Amino acid sequence: MALKLYGLPMSTNTTRAMICLHEKEVDFELVPVNVFTAEHKEPPFLSKNPFGLIPVLEDGELTLFESRAITAYVAEKFKETEPDLIRHKDAKEGALVKVWTEVESHYYEPAVSPIIYEHFVAPFQGKEPDKTVIDTNVEKLKKVLDVYEAKLSSSKYLAGEFYSLADLSHVSETHYLMQTPCASLINDRPHVKAWWEDISSRSAFNKVVGGMTFGQNQE
Amino acid sequence: MALKLYGLPMSTNTTRAMICLHEKEVDFELVPVNVFTAEHKEPPFLSKNPFGLIPVLEDGELTLFESRAITAYVAEKFKETEPDLIRHKDAKEGALVKVWTEVESHYYEPAVSPIIYEHFVAPFQGKEPDKTVIDTNVEKLKKVLDVYEAKLSSSKYLAGEFYSLADLSHVSETHYLMQTPCASLINDRPHVKAWWEDISSRSAFNKVVGGMTFGQNQE
Repeated sequence: MALKLYGLPMSTNTTRAMICLHEKEVDFELVPVNVFTAEHKEPPFLSKNPFGLIPVLEDGELTLFESRAITAYVAEKFKETEPDLIRHKDAKEGALVKVWTEVESHYYEPAVSPIIYEHFVAPFQGKEPDKTVIDTNVEKLKKVLDVYEAKLSSSKYLAGEFYSLADLSHVSETHYLMQTPCASLINDRPHVKAWWEDISSRSAFNKVVGGMTFGQNQE
Repeated sequence: MALKLYGLPMSTNTTRAMICLHEKEVDFELVPVNVFTAEHKEPPFLSKNPFGLIPVLEDGELTLFESRAITAYVAEKFKETEPDLIRHKDAKEGALVKVWTEVESHYYEPAVSPIIYEHFVAPFQGKEPDKTVIDTNVEKLKKVLDVYEAKLSSSKYLAGEFYSLADLSHVSETHYLMQTPCASLINDRPHVKAWWEDISSRSAFNKVVGGMTFGQNQE
């Protein structure tokens, strides 16, 4: 039975899970959730994720939520399929994957997400982007990216010389970031830029990028 | 060679790692980092963690940061020692541990942390606690704890009938929360209260709780 992923192809958290499934060439069905009619806040969906957020993965009887838990599960379940996103044969490499996955979750995404929100979601809701919010988070993001630039000058990917879940976790949100004037934060740092060009050219991402259209009409 | 943990016994992120090490009865040395003189923002420490935050774990040549990556590494390395905090023999249980560890990281801690900050850190810095910040986060925390109450009415622990990394991750911050008037948020929910009494009575936590003295002079 194919896995079922509940979500939306324009959602960064949904595509984080989709990219991981595509990396492993796993057969899955994307079940659309209409967030615009708040379908995710109604009992049928809340029975899958009591926090009312997409994505949700169903694998037979097992129901999982939180995109990074979903990717960790998929990467573990299909660990023998290349690419090995969790470096399961090397405990130290695996530990570094966890470190940089946490970095994405606690430093990178919290800075990038408000920038994306102000550039894409605010105009969609008829609001002016809040320049103060953008500026504050640009400053945070610069500090994070300075660390990335130093790290990526000594290793090709964040956790080492191998593409992993740590890199994969960044792809969806960076795709939207690159459509804002803040793309310069990536492009001005040569090692970060080379890393982004590498991880965004993978075929797994190319399979989802066509659906990541949020804000396209606002451009 | 014993593992080295750089941090402070009053820090919630340091004690998260310490509790995990104690659960596994791992021999480790706690190396104090003087955050009051900003030792963690100086080059020697930044070479261990470029983000300048405690804790850091050194295991021989391997250096790790981010408390949840450290606990995941320790739980994996010593997975054959009871308690099995990651349920490594059951992929589905292991996946649910990841889900609820993400929940702590993305919903619980972001609500609890500002409440702790306003009650303990602000007075320490000679500031009045910001009631608006507290009220906003109490509302967020109530919604999270309502989900926990429902979950814990159907299973003894967050990920199932077993104590795991998901429960362990909550202990440090909840200890401080319980010393504020917001303790009622836990005590008013019978299943959450029973869960807290259970996880806070474990001997691994009792080994660190004596050092968790932040704010004691402000009481």
